[in-house]
Amino acid sequence: MIQVYDDVYFMKQAMFQAQTALEEGEIPVGAVIVHKNKIIARGYNMTEKLNDFTAHAEMLAFTSASEYFGNKYLNECSLYVTLEPCVMCCGASYWTRINKIVYAASDENRRGISKGLLHPKTIVKSGLMADEAQQLLQAFFKSKRE
Amino acid sequence: MIQVYDDVYFMKQAMFQAQTALEEGEIPVGAVIVHKNKIIARGYNMTEKLNDFTAHAEMLAFTSASEYFGNKYLNECSLYVTLEPCVMCCGASYWTRINKIVYAASDENRRGISKGLLHPKTIVKSGLMADEAQQLLQAFFKSKRE
Repeated sequence: MIQVYDDVYFMKQAMFQAQTALEEGEIPVGAVIVHKNKIIARGYNMTEKLNDFTAHAEMLAFTSASEYFGNKYLNECSLYVTLEPCVMCCGASYWTRINKIVYAASDENRRGISKGLLHPKTIVKSGLMADEAQQLLQAFFKSKRE
Repeated sequence: MIQVYDDVYFMKQAMFQAQTALEEGEIPVGAVIVHKNKIIARGYNMTEKLNDFTAHAEMLAFTSASEYFGNKYLNECSLYVTLEPCVMCCGASYWTRINKIVYAASDENRRGISKGLLHPKTIVKSGLMADEAQQLLQAFFKSKRE
């Protein structure tokens, strides 16, 4: 049987969010939150538009997912995000007790994952579609230099 | 000359915010952000009301301060908060490059300050009115047990 709703499928959805961020002049990072194979929240980086550093893709998705559930805890959910979450976003994920984080590209500068900041029950998977995520980021920074 | 607008004055304003959180059934944590001796943003913990772990006092104050300035960077501002900021809030403060963080009570469980997560230029002062902040927290947890 073909598995339609797998990690690649959901990461592609996160990538669409990142693409939207790019089109709107934001650093292209996108996220979706999934519950039982259903996307319940989407977010893309809006720090420029909102003039607000707390408006990372993951943070907006956490808020949206909690609103959907009427519950702050996301321990039955998975986060798909195109860039390794920063310290802030890892700290937020700790509070939500999210079940799984799948991220694409690594962030050498502000990596939060490797600092041991996640909830001990959170499963992590990395590197999925990392090249595509990096290409979006490179396209953004190239356009800024031109 | 009497210094009216000192750290104690601003921490008291943060404490008023925490008191409001307590009255609304939230874990009592309050924050203010100050620019040139003027309070430009206030926040108190709203995680229960908003069903959202990202709604910590500091996060709401960061968003509000950036809105006031029309600028994400808060490097000329000070944050006064009644409890040691958690990992998420320290991570957010890093992005804002806030000049100074003054906090009252320490948080033995989720301390973010001691993990070296702040921006290297951020100055930290702790312990100011710590007893008052702890009393508010104890009052909250006592009321929950009864």
